Amino acid sequence: MSKLRVACFSVSLDGFGAGPNQSLENPLGEGGLALHEWFFATQTFQKLSGHPQGIEPGGGHSKVDEDFAARGFANVGAWIMGRNMFGPIRGPWPDNKWKGWWGKEPPYHTPVFVLTHHPRPSLSMAGGTTFHFITGGIRVAYERAKEAAGKMDIRLGGGVATIRQFMQAGLVDELHVAISPILLGAGERLFGGVDTKAYRCTEYAAGTGITHVVLSRKE
Amino acid sequence: MSKLRVACFSVSLDGFGAGPNQSLENPLGEGGLALHEWFFATQTFQKLSGHPQGIEPGGGHSKVDEDFAARGFANVGAWIMGRNMFGPIRGPWPDNKWKGWWGKEPPYHTPVFVLTHHPRPSLSMAGGTTFHFITGGIRVAYERAKEAAGKMDIRLGGGVATIRQFMQAGLVDELHVAISPILLGAGERLFGGVDTKAYRCTEYAAGTGITHVVLSRKE
Repeated sequence: MSKLRVACFSVSLDGFGAGPNQSLENPLGEGGLALHEWFFATQTFQKLSGHPQGIEPGGGHSKVDEDFAARGFANVGAWIMGRNMFGPIRGPWPDNKWKGWWGKEPPYHTPVFVLTHHPRPSLSMAGGTTFHFITGGIRVAYERAKEAAGKMDIRLGGGVATIRQFMQAGLVDELHVAISPILLGAGERLFGGVDTKAYRCTEYAAGTGITHVVLSRKE
Repeated sequence: MSKLRVACFSVSLDGFGAGPNQSLENPLGEGGLALHEWFFATQTFQKLSGHPQGIEPGGGHSKVDEDFAARGFANVGAWIMGRNMFGPIRGPWPDNKWKGWWGKEPPYHTPVFVLTHHPRPSLSMAGGTTFHFITGGIRVAYERAKEAAGKMDIRLGGGVATIRQFMQAGLVDELHVAISPILLGAGERLFGGVDTKAYRCTEYAAGTGITHVVLSRKE
């Protein structure tokens, strides 16, 4: 069965999925990049086509971390993401020059449905990634992604606001969350306003200085 | 140096230290007792003098869990706790019959300063535990506990509201928090309204289906 799933999503010990004061320099908010260090250290990340600007792969990872990182990309037939995960530009697109954080060949290799209020033509990149810009809201993105993914899964990227919207609509089947050993103090709370009782913890595994948790929607 | 520390304090994956609808039957709120299963499984718990009503020691624990449980009781010269951790009675004490959850010999073996709005004479129990009822607020409890503990540490029990009050006053030096693999959906958020940026994570260790985290106040 095709699932809509969140994977490799890192949160701080105090429950934030991004730090405060998000900006072009700090797209994940102040301190937010450190949440993801475990992922940058995996071979899965290091082998991804293209690297986002400013992120260097780190060294050292455990098999557990590696397995979770790889699972995040396995059997994915479509992606959905919020606009900020595609780029830092706000408001109407000034032109079509921005092509994402990842260079010519993004690591998605599937159709990617980007939520935005501002229409823009679809954008085909090397390696099979095509960005489609969806102005009709999350249900439209979901239907389009389901059609594209077929029997494969749909991976829901970030950011936090996008994940919360999909959870509130009851559309997320599974979340893999990585609990990072840092405190952010403020920012975007992953489970703020979300009915977490609709989920139960189905996996709990220790990584390298990180805890991997899989939450599955109750039947 | 004497520290004021929280130890063995369990929180859910969604950040709650107690479940919703706390009552006499559910002093930790609905689902709250399950947060502490790792602790009930430790030898430290099983060897404690007296067991609270309704809690049976469980089996199975890792050395990591055991070590954290034991550390929670080591070098403690005084305890501070909120009234609910002493008993379920609300409002003025009807009489002096309630003597805590633990029977004749509570496991504290030190002076215990109980925060309450309602005066009551001190209560000496077997094994060296004396409950003192403090109506002057957290600063008074802190000063009394410091005097009693001398060079030893003060352990701050629960509940969540008490810990938050002490954190907001900048009095907590260290917290050992255990992240349990459950979702409560609602309840008392441990870090709600607390400046977690005043702390950093100084230990992060995997237990048995649980993650142990030590947060230390920044210098």
